[in-house]
Amino acid sequence: MARPRPNPPARADRGLVALLTDFGTAGHHAGLLHGVVLGLNPAARLVDLSHGIPAGDVALGAWTLRWSWRWFPAGTVLCAVVDPGVGTARRALAAAAGGRFFVGPDNGLLSYALADAGDAAVVTLPAPDPQTLSATFHGRDLFAPAAARLSLGLPLARLGRPAGDWVRLAEQAARRVAAGRLAGEVIAVDRWGNLVTSLTAADLAREGLGGRCTVRVGRSAIRGIRGSYAEARPGGRLALINSSGHLEVAVNGGRADETLGAGRGTTVRVEDDTRR
Amino acid sequence: MARPRPNPPARADRGLVALLTDFGTAGHHAGLLHGVVLGLNPAARLVDLSHGIPAGDVALGAWTLRWSWRWFPAGTVLCAVVDPGVGTARRALAAAAGGRFFVGPDNGLLSYALADAGDAAVVTLPAPDPQTLSATFHGRDLFAPAAARLSLGLPLARLGRPAGDWVRLAEQAARRVAAGRLAGEVIAVDRWGNLVTSLTAADLAREGLGGRCTVRVGRSAIRGIRGSYAEARPGGRLALINSSGHLEVAVNGGRADETLGAGRGTTVRVEDDTRR
Amino acid sequence: MARPRPNPPARADRGLVALLTDFGTAGHHAGLLHGVVLGLNPAARLVDLSHGIPAGDVALGAWTLRWSWRWFPAGTVLCAVVDPGVGTARRALAAAAGGRFFVGPDNGLLSYALADAGDAAVVTLPAPDPQTLSATFHGRDLFAPAAARLSLGLPLARLGRPAGDWVRLAEQAARRVAAGRLAGEVIAVDRWGNLVTSLTAADLAREGLGGRCTVRVGRSAIRGIRGSYAEARPGGRLALINSSGHLEVAVNGGRADETLGAGRGTTVRVEDDTRR
Repeated sequence: MARPRPNPPARADRGLVALLTDFGTAGHHAGLLHGVVLGLNPAARLVDLSHGIPAGDVALGAWTLRWSWRWFPAGTVLCAVVDPGVGTARRALAAAAGGRFFVGPDNGLLSYALADAGDAAVVTLPAPDPQTLSATFHGRDLFAPAAARLSLGLPLARLGRPAGDWVRLAEQAARRVAAGRLAGEVIAVDRWGNLVTSLTAADLAREGLGGRCTVRVGRSAIRGIRGSYAEARPGGRLALINSSGHLEVAVNGGRADETLGAGRGTTVRVEDDTRR
Repeated sequence: MARPRPNPPARADRGLVALLTDFGTAGHHAGLLHGVVLGLNPAARLVDLSHGIPAGDVALGAWTLRWSWRWFPAGTVLCAVVDPGVGTARRALAAAAGGRFFVGPDNGLLSYALADAGDAAVVTLPAPDPQTLSATFHGRDLFAPAAARLSLGLPLARLGRPAGDWVRLAEQAARRVAAGRLAGEVIAVDRWGNLVTSLTAADLAREGLGGRCTVRVGRSAIRGIRGSYAEARPGGRLALINSSGHLEVAVNGGRADETLGAGRGTTVRVEDDTRR
Repeated sequence: MARPRPNPPARADRGLVALLTDFGTAGHHAGLLHGVVLGLNPAARLVDLSHGIPAGDVALGAWTLRWSWRWFPAGTVLCAVVDPGVGTARRALAAAAGGRFFVGPDNGLLSYALADAGDAAVVTLPAPDPQTLSATFHGRDLFAPAAARLSLGLPLARLGRPAGDWVRLAEQAARRVAAGRLAGEVIAVDRWGNLVTSLTAADLAREGLGGRCTVRVGRSAIRGIRGSYAEARPGGRLALINSSGHLEVAVNGGRADETLGAGRGTTVRVEDDTRR
């Protein structure tokens, strides 16, 4: 599956580096990544994709990267650091896939994006000199420097050796409970309290769901898939396909997480009303 | 009032795009706007004015834009997305006014800034191909692309048709309770707990207030308008004119919202002490 | 100690300006600094080092600047604004030290970084025209314009007069309780709940600590200094040297602040086990 290729799909010669971490923005950690990259590549331009991944939440980091990478221009280096295993023997990766570059720990963080991009070339980053590598901040000492080098146009193959395989997070595939009945779960709650589920528009289409169907979350039964939040009455519950192609459960003008008492891991079911 | 003009006051040829949203910074939404703009205009330079507007709070978004736009260089594109009506028939606007450009939903979000800038040219953005427009993320699919095009120097008139009028939020004018007595309300609480009121220095000057006067918030009576926080004793209550020209009620070294039990919507009165 | 020098160690001709404030990111304050700098230096490139310093927390701002400045390229202008004395007679400073430039209030905020950089040239910024200076937002009206001018390559000496001495925060030196016994305190709690202490690797080395020793926080006794979080069992307490060279107390996969009931100011002791 992992076939390292000598020629990456693009040169990162635009100098774009997007950062995705669980560092938060209260401390200096996220800011230092900018300093390190700009020290190595004065022409780099950095984007804070997000530093708000919950501490150590590799899965949500992987989802966020999956939902984001296509929206950055070809050649962008996406540097992702959610790294609870910092300082252990976990490997560090750099990859070229889908016209972008990726840098991050080998803990699954990159795996959804690499799976979607397909045909990834992946190398392992050699550990830097222990003199310059801290025990706790490989974002600064290892990943940001690698991202900076890629942003300078350094070919991927110069950064490390082919990785062979890498850690892949399990895909949260829709469970087919019966004909016309799918089950999945809430994988993220966004800022507005909307419940993003693991079920995708493609899952529903494959099962012929979408027209007359019922979405069940806890004790709530929500009829049909709407086209926008405002198609429900104010305060009303609804389901729609969100901007990442996932089934989302929302409350128009309210918070679905609170109204439905649901959160990450809550089971969500979709049933074809015409088959009952 | 709305007189579309063929010639915008400036070309946005510096590539500056400032983003103001209620997306927060935990998820990927704010970061994707950067990716989309940079994909269309590789030379764009983006500023995160704020992504911390409370979810759906169009009024606070409008105040924030009013307090901000003049501080960005001429030609800057200010792209504002606080859009609880996303996916409905509400229009999408682009405007040229006061030497800057503005992009956002037609829900009043731009209206305070446009009122202050005066002589605005405003167009409606045509809905993009439904194939590329999500139901829930017009920031990514509609507003950021329009901002990117303006930042490339595309004339406003090329983006859409003259908008005619647009939604305007009510101005929260000072209420003249009696001669020498004004009433307004708290419109924002800042990070330090200071109470920003709807009363402006101009309101007070018009009424001859400013010297010997009393500011009343709840049961608190605060004497005079100070020049700085430190003119009150530590822990003491005070009123001053803040950096946006608004009357602000503060506690030196403390939080006025907690000390005074006040928040958005709380009535604030100013009385001329010499007229009692 | 303060020897103003006519020739700053570097010209800030790369246009890099890093911002460190207690403004938060909810309001418009941090964003306006970008607008002001870009208005004066259209080629400036800004980095948000952090806007999350707790309101008015000069000490944590000073620590953060100390831990950060070296990681920005030579010539970077670090503009720091944690300024509870805004509007008082406290002076405003600009400095050249360690190849970087610093701008901020004379309240100790810059003092740790200047102490580390050594050989600082420091000037006081003249108060701007009161017509353009607000009482509450000198970040916008005074510090950002000074940072912008430095980023344009203006020599430090052109910004103001030699400052003589400046306010210096007390260094929180390790207390030598006895031979082989040091005491310090928690100076910061990071996003992951780790306790960053005032004791440094150099302090421990000077006292011969590091091998067989015990770190005491409250009633917890933690054996030895580890090389990484993962050297403790999951949920286990540990001590290590963090990425800024400070002794840090952590819980592998957990929050040390909650587990140990500790926070800023909590005393931390390190004892040589071989000397008991």
